[in-house]
Amino acid sequence: MTMLPPLDDPVAIARALLMCPSVTPADGGALALVEAIAEALGFAGERPVFTAPDTPDVENLFARRGDSGPHLVFAGHTDVVPPGDVARWRHDPFAGAIDDGHLWGRGAVDMKGGIAAFLAAVGRLVRDGRMPEGRVSLLITGDEEGPSINGTPKLLAWALARGERFDAAVVGEPTNPEAIGDAIKVGRRGSLSGTVTVTGQQGHVAYPDLADNPIPKLVRLVAALGDEPLDTGNDRFPPSNLEFVSLDVGNPAWNVIPRDARGRFNVRFNDIWTPATLEAELRARLTRAAGNAVDWELVVERPTSDSFLTRDPGLIDVLAAAVETVTGRRPTLSTSGGTSDARYIKDHCPVVEFGLVGQTMHKIDERVAVADLELLTRVYEAFLVGWFETAAR
Amino acid sequence: MTMLPPLDDPVAIARALLMCPSVTPADGGALALVEAIAEALGFAGERPVFTAPDTPDVENLFARRGDSGPHLVFAGHTDVVPPGDVARWRHDPFAGAIDDGHLWGRGAVDMKGGIAAFLAAVGRLVRDGRMPEGRVSLLITGDEEGPSINGTPKLLAWALARGERFDAAVVGEPTNPEAIGDAIKVGRRGSLSGTVTVTGQQGHVAYPDLADNPIPKLVRLVAALGDEPLDTGNDRFPPSNLEFVSLDVGNPAWNVIPRDARGRFNVRFNDIWTPATLEAELRARLTRAAGNAVDWELVVERPTSDSFLTRDPGLIDVLAAAVETVTGRRPTLSTSGGTSDARYIKDHCPVVEFGLVGQTMHKIDERVAVADLELLTRVYEAFLVGWFETAAR
Repeated sequence: MTMLPPLDDPVAIARALLMCPSVTPADGGALALVEAIAEALGFAGERPVFTAPDTPDVENLFARRGDSGPHLVFAGHTDVVPPGDVARWRHDPFAGAIDDGHLWGRGAVDMKGGIAAFLAAVGRLVRDGRMPEGRVSLLITGDEEGPSINGTPKLLAWALARGERFDAAVVGEPTNPEAIGDAIKVGRRGSLSGTVTVTGQQGHVAYPDLADNPIPKLVRLVAALGDEPLDTGNDRFPPSNLEFVSLDVGNPAWNVIPRDARGRFNVRFNDIWTPATLEAELRARLTRAAGNAVDWELVVERPTSDSFLTRDPGLIDVLAAAVETVTGRRPTLSTSGGTSDARYIKDHCPVVEFGLVGQTMHKIDERVAVADLELLTRVYEAFLVGWFETAAR
Repeated sequence: MTMLPPLDDPVAIARALLMCPSVTPADGGALALVEAIAEALGFAGERPVFTAPDTPDVENLFARRGDSGPHLVFAGHTDVVPPGDVARWRHDPFAGAIDDGHLWGRGAVDMKGGIAAFLAAVGRLVRDGRMPEGRVSLLITGDEEGPSINGTPKLLAWALARGERFDAAVVGEPTNPEAIGDAIKVGRRGSLSGTVTVTGQQGHVAYPDLADNPIPKLVRLVAALGDEPLDTGNDRFPPSNLEFVSLDVGNPAWNVIPRDARGRFNVRFNDIWTPATLEAELRARLTRAAGNAVDWELVVERPTSDSFLTRDPGLIDVLAAAVETVTGRRPTLSTSGGTSDARYIKDHCPVVEFGLVGQTMHKIDERVAVADLELLTRVYEAFLVGWFETAAR
């Protein structure tokens, strides 16, 4: 192992992590580095590799500090999305450049920076002799940006099979739209994807009466699914939203009416719906729009994911208080945005998410303000102290 | 050269042609066979090969009988479309099987059968010493089903450069919807193809406010182009018709809103429109439907083809009389259906089309009734006699 970065310095730790080229499913040495830092801080780590047919093998890390008492989990991932056109980056996405008050690189905010801030928070508490009694675990996967098959779900099952039980979890994904302190995620919308296929009759464009063009029919069904809002949201969640992500006919000819046409869509839905009631509503809309004249089929991708809302006031209040103490701002409790591995953790313990500012995630020139890494480290530090105080009562 | 089929037998000639595997741009020996039969009937043939960048080289045949007098052209093609799934054919598409009163194979009606009938018509007139004075030419390409770049347009230019001038032409494409005698084609609708592209802003489905989905906008433009009829036709032509042939986004992801979406369409239009007025109408529809909120582009494929109507009563009346004499039925004068190489010939002489029954063209189990080959041969025979009689007056 090369020399470790200073254990109380989130920028140095994040920089070292950014220099591991861990484009999913590659690891690039990132998990070994997290494990080495964690072990230097008193964690005991293991790195199970999970496999499945037709998916890449994935390395994961579970590391626990403490043997008894309340058990807090910090969950995250070291894998990153591809950098895209590297030539368009201001700095090499895997060089860990610091420039203009920012640390630049793929994963800076999503979410090596979050992991670094959590490790540095523990590092400072250990350094100062203030680390609370109890158990803290790191649940870190290399498969959050990939198919999510050999990552968090299997790592959770693996840990549970070994007798681990968790009292609460924080996921370090970027949750703040503009600035540290904007928002804690306390739930997630569900996600349902589907394909609508309309079948017609192939034929020559010059003889439309001998054919049956599926395209105008598909267009009608796309409008029927998307034009009317599904709901207006409620006090817990924003409105559900349906987006078509592709239309595909793939007919290379100009003079042939195609046989079938497909549209693929995704719905992010709130707790007004379950996957089953939502699918029923979509089928009802399609049935009404299609009448008897359209031969259509809806195939829903499995598994769907349901919405969830964390209702543990202890966890949420302690985190919100830590955020407010450090940043001076009261975070909103949000349920918008995309899915994360919190959807798996929620089945085992209350889970919230708080991390960096998401603006540059998945983009060219992903970067994190050095000041944000310091703020987030201090939020996690205050949260660690506060959560164990509350849990000990 | 192998033994030629009997020169007065359209079934034997068609069968020999079907056994040449001439899936465009391959020739499979088909043109050499036509040339050999023609030369046995007193034609002098040449087989120019035309080439162009990025397109296959194509063999063509020009064969003329007679040196002076009125000049009639028979035009057609020996190339055929691919057979599709050969296992689904009742008979090998290139074996020339005769079964159930039909000759089976790719090209049976489109249009090796038509060429065979014309050759046999000349064969019978020559055999009986009744072949009229004057000039008859065969203008046969191997590039009608392909890109139409190295075929009829270049063959016409080649012949004109050699001083050939034509008085009338018959194209032997299948023109009859149900039975020999249904219809003579005396014109064609124009054809205009275009691509509508809508550009939005890529983004994550969970954050639709940060993206701009082009799909609902494209759907609106597709409806705007296709929902209202362009016209109701007139006494010369059926209504113009627009068909979308493809919608293409090609986004493989479920969680990404795509940047752009394309729809490709073809219009078959009558003489109410020119390509320019039609394009203007389509742009006006798109502009109205798009408003200011849609970033769209229309690209029209070049060249477009305009509609045309043949107004040579001599040619049309003689052919209609021949059809009625042989079949007992008065053919309608049609301008519907697809384009053919007549669109090139019309610039040089009056042109009409009459051939076999088109029902099985381009389909699995393409076949021609043996009785139809006989009827068409007799129509062409009567037409040859009648046209030269009229032309000689």
